[in-house]
Amino acid sequence: MQDTIERIRKFRDERDWKQFHDPKNLAVSISIEAAELLELFQWKTGDEAGRFAAENKERVSEEIADVAIYLIELADVTGIDLAKAIEAKLDKNARKYPVDKARGVSTKYTDLK
Amino acid sequence: MQDTIERIRKFRDERDWKQFHDPKNLAVSISIEAAELLELFQWKTGDEAGRFAAENKERVSEEIADVAIYLIELADVTGIDLAKAIEAKLDKNARKYPVDKARGVSTKYTDLK
Amino acid sequence: MQDTIERIRKFRDERDWKQFHDPKNLAVSISIEAAELLELFQWKTGDEAGRFAAENKERVSEEIADVAIYLIELADVTGIDLAKAIEAKLDKNARKYPVDKARGVSTKYTDLK
Amino acid sequence: MQDTIERIRKFRDERDWKQFHDPKNLAVSISIEAAELLELFQWKTGDEAGRFAAENKERVSEEIADVAIYLIELADVTGIDLAKAIEAKLDKNARKYPVDKARGVSTKYTDLK
Repeated sequence: MQDTIERIRKFRDERDWKQFHDPKNLAVSISIEAAELLELFQWKTGDEAGRFAAENKERVSEEIADVAIYLIELADVTGIDLAKAIEAKLDKNARKYPVDKARGVSTKYTDLK
Repeated sequence: MQDTIERIRKFRDERDWKQFHDPKNLAVSISIEAAELLELFQWKTGDEAGRFAAENKERVSEEIADVAIYLIELADVTGIDLAKAIEAKLDKNARKYPVDKARGVSTKYTDLK
Repeated sequence: MQDTIERIRKFRDERDWKQFHDPKNLAVSISIEAAELLELFQWKTGDEAGRFAAENKERVSEEIADVAIYLIELADVTGIDLAKAIEAKLDKNARKYPVDKARGVSTKYTDLK
Repeated sequence: MQDTIERIRKFRDERDWKQFHDPKNLAVSISIEAAELLELFQWKTGDEAGRFAAENKERVSEEIADVAIYLIELADVTGIDLAKAIEAKLDKNARKYPVDKARGVSTKYTDLK
């Protein structure tokens, strides 16, 4: 992970792009890339989306990476340790959605919120 | 990373949520969480967003983690190695945006596309 | 429509909010509100989404209105006649997706693009 | 407005696309189109976004129309009168953000929520 962060920083700084990469612009870019990822599955059913992903692994892979790169950079510029942030959130989710109440409930997130 | 993937799988499977987590639903969730992250910076300038992030590190951290968790799970269910996907995309970006052409150009991505 | 535009302008100006409502901030807000609308249908199938909408008309109605209000304001601040913009885009779509090629094709937009 | 709704229905039905246009798929499409609109202003300041919109009115106009068309269709398939929904939401916003409290406050929506 640390290597990836270094590489993203180097890529940005060689191009003098840090001036544009404030947290808001990075969050905007994450949303834009997330929508490009979603577009791959537009109009498809869940099953069709699964088949499409299996047959177009490189396209899916690239769109996932685009979101991930900006997300790693946003964590970096805001001084957040992404691995620790994920662990902390998983802990919180485990408390928020206890197994016995959340099991197999399709309205899960919404109703348990 | 592998530990995190295992933990996300276990969290999902204990709740019997795999039935909902097809690639399309996960991509939808990534977009929704990306927008919640963006909402933290709504109406703010880039500078204000930077100050807000410094003063509200936990909220930013949680929203970043929400996007990351679904992104890691989407990579997992589609059989994509997220670390490799990021490396491959950084390689591609380096070819797409050569330093001498991209340096300090604010219209960068758009004009060089 | 003109009455609605006047009302949105008045609402904004009485609160002295025009300073925040540049095209970028409005586009950010449209994306955020679009995600809140999408969240109503998160994890649901198409059929479940239809039933949910029928049983929760007011919530759906409010989220649709939130997107529409910012969209109308963005058209207004950029000097675009929204009704004419829609007509022009429907003309263009009719040329882009001829009936005989687009009929019943689920991959439609993507393949015909 | 009623003419526009009729035209959108006719366009969809001639292509036999109603089968794909459930509320969830339409909400997904609204989010995707909202992100394409936002992409026009990616990396720009508010002022630069204003200049870009003035110089690229047709592109902005097309992206706004794309969001509007799916939004009008979503209102139509869920039996919502869009004009009434907007009026009702403006009434609610007026109660939620009283002029004396909201005036010139940049943290407005967030803090007053």
